[in-house]
Amino acid sequence: MNENSLMKVAIIGSGNVAWHLSKALSHKVELFNLNPRTFEGMPSGIHKIDIALLCVKDDIIEKIAKELPRLNPEIIAHTSGSIPMSILSKYNPRYGVFYPLQTFTKHTDLIYSDIPFFLEASDQEGLEILQKLSYLVSEKVFFANSEQRKKLHLASVFACNFTNALVDISSDILMDTGIPYQALLPLLSQTIEKLTHISPAQAQTGPAIRDDQMVINSHLEMLEHYPIYKDIYSLLSDYIRNRRLKENHKNQI
Amino acid sequence: MNENSLMKVAIIGSGNVAWHLSKALSHKVELFNLNPRTFEGMPSGIHKIDIALLCVKDDIIEKIAKELPRLNPEIIAHTSGSIPMSILSKYNPRYGVFYPLQTFTKHTDLIYSDIPFFLEASDQEGLEILQKLSYLVSEKVFFANSEQRKKLHLASVFACNFTNALVDISSDILMDTGIPYQALLPLLSQTIEKLTHISPAQAQTGPAIRDDQMVINSHLEMLEHYPIYKDIYSLLSDYIRNRRLKENHKNQI
Repeated sequence: MNENSLMKVAIIGSGNVAWHLSKALSHKVELFNLNPRTFEGMPSGIHKIDIALLCVKDDIIEKIAKELPRLNPEIIAHTSGSIPMSILSKYNPRYGVFYPLQTFTKHTDLIYSDIPFFLEASDQEGLEILQKLSYLVSEKVFFANSEQRKKLHLASVFACNFTNALVDISSDILMDTGIPYQALLPLLSQTIEKLTHISPAQAQTGPAIRDDQMVINSHLEMLEHYPIYKDIYSLLSDYIRNRRLKENHKNQI
Repeated sequence: MNENSLMKVAIIGSGNVAWHLSKALSHKVELFNLNPRTFEGMPSGIHKIDIALLCVKDDIIEKIAKELPRLNPEIIAHTSGSIPMSILSKYNPRYGVFYPLQTFTKHTDLIYSDIPFFLEASDQEGLEILQKLSYLVSEKVFFANSEQRKKLHLASVFACNFTNALVDISSDILMDTGIPYQALLPLLSQTIEKLTHISPAQAQTGPAIRDDQMVINSHLEMLEHYPIYKDIYSLLSDYIRNRRLKENHKNQI
């Protein structure tokens, strides 16, 4: 790879991740967008590329990887949180993972420089290539092996997918009040903002951490006819209470 | 109340809400900060005030309200999400609720104009006084009766207190990876940001909404030794899946 020329990057995929990575990398690399079914989009004059980036669903990563040798890539990498790097080992001597921790929706503006990238590669040189690519997008570049990345993915399901579900429940609770769920968003933003400065254990507020049984019981009563909401309320309140007891116990030792 | 003079407002309390409301209202009203135990802080020359604002814990609102006649207020109001307005009815002819939906921590910067205020009053004139006060702080002023406010408070426990608990769990899952939970915050901010444009039902992502059993099972396996996390994961995933089935069903009708 010539240090002064642009990297040649093929992005294979047509989903949200492909769309955003293409946008974030445009003008910064020589970019080829390839259709994952036909591999159309590769100009005939190109005989070698630096990176083939697989931005496809988890369950077809391996199938598409089999087709990559025809691109003659220096390194192939997938962008999935939950798939181990080793799935690529048979299809190219050098391989890795280029995992952007973000929720991507097409045609939504994102501050790309804020996105943390988690990298893994089969060897040091592979890591350096992926690192060079990620620094073109963001300054938040980390390394994570497949085991760490799997935990990261699980953590993001709790922090993000489940948070969205909680707002969905809130929205349902507010349904007949005429108050839109959007009224909760400034509070929610502040809840997240706080966590840049203090840990979630320190930031916890609400009836469960105060062990305010009067409020908890009145909430459970309101949820009488919503058994699943009631279960979620009880379970998360128990978690918060036990967490506090554990913290107190730790402080006493 | 003379339209051209500043409102005279007494804030009773020494907690986070009192601290922030005092900051938000300073220079905009004639402000008296009163100690909730001694009522010290009231200059002797003042014989009548416009608003006495009770920023104290839920369980002492009534006790402190009994002391308010000595301030000779036009209206008394509490700032609690879960306490009905009627608790104040015995202590002043005109009474109400001035509820800012926000999580307050002292010495933290807040954009006050973003905070939604939910108002309730015993009569129209009381409502107008509280409305005038809230517009000094924010443009987001709503009305909510005690029943609506109770639901709002419950909804905010789901959306905010429980979200914080989920990040706490994420933080624990990441503990031994060396990756700080802060790496999740851009993703979490984007999760919230999305909800300004699309509903939580439309915004839902993750393995549960895709019904991706492979990923769900691998996550449950990782949580094998954390029974409470496993229960929370299962319950929220079930919720998301059922929600999707319900939506699909609705679309089919």
